[in-house]
Amino acid sequence: MAEEATGPVMVLVRPQMGENIGAAARAMWNFGLDRLRIVAPRDGWPNPKAIAMASGALAVLDHARILPSVAVALADLTHVFAATARPRELVKPVFTPEAAMARARELIAAGEQVGMLFGPERAGLENEDLVAVNAFISVPVNPDFPSLNLAQCVLLTAYEWRRATEKAPGERLDLGRTRMAEQGEVERFVAELFARLDQAGFFFPAHKRASMEANLRNLFARAPLTDTDIRTLYGVVRALWEKGRPGHG
Amino acid sequence: MAEEATGPVMVLVRPQMGENIGAAARAMWNFGLDRLRIVAPRDGWPNPKAIAMASGALAVLDHARILPSVAVALADLTHVFAATARPRELVKPVFTPEAAMARARELIAAGEQVGMLFGPERAGLENEDLVAVNAFISVPVNPDFPSLNLAQCVLLTAYEWRRATEKAPGERLDLGRTRMAEQGEVERFVAELFARLDQAGFFFPAHKRASMEANLRNLFARAPLTDTDIRTLYGVVRALWEKGRPGHG
Repeated sequence: MAEEATGPVMVLVRPQMGENIGAAARAMWNFGLDRLRIVAPRDGWPNPKAIAMASGALAVLDHARILPSVAVALADLTHVFAATARPRELVKPVFTPEAAMARARELIAAGEQVGMLFGPERAGLENEDLVAVNAFISVPVNPDFPSLNLAQCVLLTAYEWRRATEKAPGERLDLGRTRMAEQGEVERFVAELFARLDQAGFFFPAHKRASMEANLRNLFARAPLTDTDIRTLYGVVRALWEKGRPGHG
Repeated sequence: MAEEATGPVMVLVRPQMGENIGAAARAMWNFGLDRLRIVAPRDGWPNPKAIAMASGALAVLDHARILPSVAVALADLTHVFAATARPRELVKPVFTPEAAMARARELIAAGEQVGMLFGPERAGLENEDLVAVNAFISVPVNPDFPSLNLAQCVLLTAYEWRRATEKAPGERLDLGRTRMAEQGEVERFVAELFARLDQAGFFFPAHKRASMEANLRNLFARAPLTDTDIRTLYGVVRALWEKGRPGHG
């Protein structure tokens, strides 16, 4: 916890509602961030509504630093991004949340102290808050409805931090207690199936046999089968074969 | 708006709190999604708390379809992802939100009808809701604090939809009313500066001139300068040159 951790410092500037401070703390901790600084919270500190909302992320609030000004909050940071909906006339690089967090990861790996600045509800950050920051973060929202609230903005940024630092595979199979079937297991099942079908006169006419077999093999190859699937399929074949009622079907 | 649009259909299953339904509608519309279906909302429909929370995204609620069961809600969809914290023993592909939305974009481009299923608060989706879905979505949360609420889960998914469909450049310079300076403009400024410095006897001793010039050129080349910056720099040089007080230090 607290300031010795490795993620960026999240800095809330003049936040108004305690609920939003608590929700921002939750959003941070959802994605493993725990370094929070709060500049001049409107309703003072501690804030009971922030505590009530933070629930499981209370430790983030407990370790938060309360500071009187943006300048003091940023004093020990070497690289600061500011989340702002419409970057002002200040010319600075504008990053997507993804690109900002990829950059933050590089900077932190190189030993820099990185911060993310978030403005107050409604008013947003003022030009004087923004002059000293290194870059802006702009979330690619629907231009017809760009109103993200403070906690949502922190959530998306924290989410991108986790994505930048923990590259999960985009797609995986969740196997639970089962495992993927080996090719040989699938092959043995298919052989048994074909033997039964052969006995049943399924492969008719004979010159179509090859293509009928290919289609069936392909069907079982298309879906990745687990060992449970294979057992189930044996059961299906056996049930049909043994319990069928020839002449009634 | 509504069902003829191109994004995936977001399906809320047995949502409990009206506020969460409204917040989910907002989160959808923040990222340009507007096709909402609600299965068996606990408190009936319409829900005044959902309406109050939706505010600017009210049209999403107005066009929402209220349906009695998951089966009916999914009947016309060809590919369904379910957001679920811990995928059950059902073996299906598990996607990150990013990979799921990249896949959804491909499927929709190929003419498929894609849906995203979100479970009720606390309880989550039940196995019988999940049997028929094609894949799971799992958000890479902090395992120590995985508690995303319904609207946050919809927000992250909708955000990834927009990222998948509108590739914004990761980093750009926001120039506002200004523009980047051309090399020639920088060069002319540097020449004027050097002329003044030369007059001032700055380049001393003479054999260091080349390296002193190189250092200065490099300094102005390092930061990308705008035409406003250049005008400002001319002003600085002129002010120092004309208003300086030789002999006073």
